[in-house]
Formats: sequence, structure tokens, C-alpha cells
Amino acid sequence: MRKDVFTGRWVIMADTAVVRPSDFHFTRFVRETTFCPFCETNEASTPAEVFAIRTRGSSANRPGWSVRVVPNVAPRLRIEGDLGRRAEGFHDVMNGVGAHEIIVETPRHDCSLHELEVHEISNVIRAYVARLVDLEGDKRMRYVLIFKNHGEQAGAHTISHSISQLMGLAVTPRSVKTKLMVARDYFATKERCLYCDVLQQELKERKRVIAENEDFLAFAPFASRFPFEMAVFPKAHNSAFSRISPGQVEGLARILRDTLRKLDHTLGGPPYNLSLQDRPFLRPRAGYWNTIEDDFHWHLEVLPQIVRISGFEWASGFFYNPVPPEVAARCLNP
Amino acid sequence: MRKDVFTGRWVIMADTAVVRPSDFHFTRFVRETTFCPFCETNEASTPAEVFAIRTRGSSANRPGWSVRVVPNVAPRLRIEGDLGRRAEGFHDVMNGVGAHEIIVETPRHDCSLHELEVHEISNVIRAYVARLVDLEGDKRMRYVLIFKNHGEQAGAHTISHSISQLMGLAVTPRSVKTKLMVARDYFATKERCLYCDVLQQELKERKRVIAENEDFLAFAPFASRFPFEMAVFPKAHNSAFSRISPGQVEGLARILRDTLRKLDHTLGGPPYNLSLQDRPFLRPRAGYWNTIEDDFHWHLEVLPQIVRISGFEWASGFFYNPVPPEVAARCLNP
Repeated sequence: MRKDVFTGRWVIMADTAVVRPSDFHFTRFVRETTFCPFCETNEASTPAEVFAIRTRGSSANRPGWSVRVVPNVAPRLRIEGDLGRRAEGFHDVMNGVGAHEIIVETPRHDCSLHELEVHEISNVIRAYVARLVDLEGDKRMRYVLIFKNHGEQAGAHTISHSISQLMGLAVTPRSVKTKLMVARDYFATKERCLYCDVLQQELKERKRVIAENEDFLAFAPFASRFPFEMAVFPKAHNSAFSRISPGQVEGLARILRDTLRKLDHTLGGPPYNLSLQDRPFLRPRAGYWNTIEDDFHWHLEVLPQIVRISGFEWASGFFYNPVPPEVAARCLNP
Repeated sequence: MRKDVFTGRWVIMADTAVVRPSDFHFTRFVRETTFCPFCETNEASTPAEVFAIRTRGSSANRPGWSVRVVPNVAPRLRIEGDLGRRAEGFHDVMNGVGAHEIIVETPRHDCSLHELEVHEISNVIRAYVARLVDLEGDKRMRYVLIFKNHGEQAGAHTISHSISQLMGLAVTPRSVKTKLMVARDYFATKERCLYCDVLQQELKERKRVIAENEDFLAFAPFASRFPFEMAVFPKAHNSAFSRISPGQVEGLARILRDTLRKLDHTLGGPPYNLSLQDRPFLRPRAGYWNTIEDDFHWHLEVLPQIVRISGFEWASGFFYNPVPPEVAARCLNP
């Protein structure tokens, strides 16, 4: 059993030494070819774009873009109105105010994220940054969650065009709060960043490294919850994703493409969830975790969805992982 | 958006007023009919039983039982050895010591839990209690998790015979710790039990009640994470499930059968996870939450698995629920 140093969560790890992709049962990613509102020339089928990276001279909501961000047509949260935090008897409620946007990663229907070129993935990252910076200006927002569902078992049940989603939230998610509090306590004791320390340890041991370049390290976390789980850390300390330097954008695009390609190739089209784990916006009166400025260290999480979650996980918050991360790293780098 | 009073978790709740079972996409429960090691007369196919409720005169590991508990043949944790909690560089690890048992709920292959008679379900509950009491005597154990996976999407991928599982753990699960800490803080402020207070509120409002009898209330929690989520609370305050009185066992069997039948009938064989949320064993030096004796209030959770979890939930710990609990309660009691 291994304890995750970032969250305090325990994971029961199988002592498997060898795994075969055929040990897992998942639906291989399939591309639907019905009418797609996210394809180039179908721009009129979505709400008006809020951001796009376009060729010079092209007009908004017309062809000529590389990445395009539009509001979700069936948003889970709505951008209008105030938060209205209030008591309802015993309970706390608030209005469903927030942003819910679709980041269309490519005008082409026939490419997944890992099949794009580095300069195209760089544009996706630039779109993430642009939306984060813009939404930080909305004082109701405390956190922006950026995530991606690839394949049906990862929750992408409607459209197979390669997209990410963004949710601007008026509260900081619990799992982020937990990571922040652990990182702050660590910093208070050691006067060093927990994430920087783990990064150095992974670079020294090299038992769980999946890919590396000048600015980024991708590795299988020591207490991975999911088989073939991957984390991507920037090597230089940085709490906020939006402060990524222009030079680092390409390095991130490269390592993301490399790791997702390895995952796809090793397992044969597995479903996965990708998310950005960023620090919350700095706001007054948003709870004591928000006083942290630099204790956090942004990172990406890739969670392949190739095993079923059972009552054990739901009832306990504990996980059982049939593939130790050392074995996963070896499989991904044969 | 609603905040769960027991955990502090936020849920984005759709404002749907009407739902149809056909809105959900799940694989209806299917009973396999290949050789089953849990059927009566196949007792020799499992490890030797650790507990059984049998007709007078029948012998262990032979026919003549109503409920039978056996060790899992492929356990995720092993009962032998010591915990060996230790540091591994940065990380905390411990040996995979614990119990992993199968509670076979019926000798018959053709019945799910909700199809059993009340006296049969009562025996299942008695088996839970007997195993809890026995494992409390093992000083390495801090928590016993009892759960059930019904249907493939709920993680029951191997055998369709009706079983529950038990895991004896050397650490208290995180989600239990969270509930304990919230309940203790509430008690410290109000000098009342949080769960007792919510129970009274639900009985007064009656907007989310699913079933009720003398000793138990089943309701759809205010901040349900899953559509048609249900909770069963004992009406009388009791922190430890093993202290259930013999008279309450039958009432629990009745309300469990009634709620699971309503769920099955309304949705047409949905997959679900059931779990017992109990307080940890009282142990010295097991962290400060373990000093709580009576702040907790045991309960059952039923989580239907009829929507896919996506990157949003994994990345945030937040949930999106398309069916408000008031609507779920109305659907279940048409």
C-alpha cells in the first residue's frame, strides 16, 4: 500500500511485474462521422466564439482558425447573474453561475490531440492561457478547471471531435483545496516546494520517468490511482499555469504529444481524462487556502480509464491499482 | 449548486423537473449462468468459510446455509503479517495487510439482493455484524468497509451471484475521515448529532423521502452526487453498526428491500453500489479523529451507476447531477 504524498490518499498497489494491454477491457476510441458542429465550415452551428487563433485576415465565426473557443450550448453553469450564496434550512446553496466553454483543438475531425503537430498543440495551450487570463478578470470566478474527456469510458459520449472543456467556478474544488493545504504544510516545515522535491527525486531515481525535455518531466506517480496514470510537471517552480513563458509552451506541447502517443500506442486507443491542476485565483475572503501564492506547483494529470471503479473506491476514497507505476513506465518505454 | 452538509462537497444540480428512465444509458443487470463457485453444492470451489448461518445439523463447507462468508480467492489484501509502516524515500508505504472476504448473500444463483425475502436479508445483515465484531478483535484493523457492486457498470465484472464484499483495512479511509471530522465539528458547536438533525429535517420536509419504517428512514440526499442516490439512516442515534439491536435488523432488511426494489422497478435493472458507512474501530494512536466515540451516525449509501464520470469529476472532486433528489424521490414513489 502506498500513500500519495500530494493528497494523503492510500492506494492498494498490486505486485504485478508484467502487464499486457489485453489484461484490460475498454472500448477503443471510435471516431463518429455524423454532422459535427466543431468542424471547419460549421462555425454557424455553435454559439459565437469567445476566442480563436486565426490566420491573418479571417473573420470571427468563419473558417481560417487553428483553435476556437465557444460557449457550451448546454452549459452546466451559466455566465449571467450573481452567486447568491445563501442558506436553505440546514443546507448551503448558490446559483449555478460560472463559465462552461468548449476549446476546439483543431478544425479537422480526423485528428485526436496526440495526432496533432507540436505547433498545433502549442496553440491549444495558448488558448488555455488566454481563457484563464480573461476569466481571472471576472471577480465571481475563483477557479478555472480545464479538462478533456477522450473516449466513451472517459465520459465523452456525444461528439468525437477533439475538444477540451473549461469550467469557470465560483468555488475552489475540494481536490485542489486538499493539494493546496498539503503543499502549504510541507512548505511551512521544509521551506521547499513539495512538487519541486518530488520532481528532483523522480529525476534521480528514474524508475517512473515516461518522458523528459528541457522544461518538463512526465512520470508515473508513485501512488497512481489508475493503471498508466501520468503526471506532467514543469521543472521550474511556477504556481500558476498562466505564467508559463512563451518558450515553455512548445516544450509542454512536445511532452504532451509524446506521452499521449506512448499511451495510445502501448494500450491501443485507450480512453483517458486529462486535466490541468492549477492554483486558484487570488481573491480576498475566499478561505485560508487562498492566501497561498507560491506553495502550489501547477501540473497536468492524465488518467487512463481502463478499469472500472467499484463500490470499494466510491465508499472509501481509496483506490486499487493493478499496475504499479514502475511497470507502467517500463511498458510505455519498451 | 448545493453543498453536501456531511462532507463539504459541492454538487452542480440540474434544474430538471421531469426525468424518464430512458434518459440514461446503462447496461441492464444480466445474470450469467456459467459455473458459479458461490452456489449451494459448490462449496468446495471456495476457500473454507469463515462464517455461515446454517440449518441445525449441517456442517461447515457443505450445503445447508443461508449466508456464507469466505475469503476472496484473489484478495487485494492479505490477512497474514504485520503492517510494516515505513518511509520509502519521500513516500509512506505499508504492507498490504488486511481482510478481503466475500459475503454470499444467498445459496441461490437466480436472486438479487432486492429479490430476497426479509428474513434472508436479515441474515445478510447478521453476517455483516458478525464479521465486524470478529475483525474488531484483530488489533491491526482500523476499519472494515462493507460494500456491494451490482451490475457491470458498478464494477461487478466477474460473477453475477449476489454477493457483498468486505475489506478490513489498517487505515481509516479518507472519505470516512472527512465525514467524521465534519460530524465532530458540528457536535462541538451544537451539542447535537449532524445526522440526527438532518434526519429530523427530512422527516419534517418530506420532499426527499423514499421509504420509512419504525426504525429507519431512506431518502435522496439534498446534495446527491448521483441520480437516484439514496441514503438509509437509523432513526435512533448510533455511531457503530455492530451495535444494531436484534429488533432493528428486520427493519433494516425491510427498508433495504423496499428501496432497492423501487430503484430496480423505476429504472429497470440499473447497476448500483451499496456501502456501509460506519465509524472506525476505537484504537489508541490512530489519529485524532479516532477519539470520537459518538459523533458519527452509521448509515447506508446506495449509488446508482447510470451516468458516466468524466474528467470534470476526476479533476475536481465536484459532481454534476442531472436529477435533483426531489425529482428522484417523486419518480421512485409515483
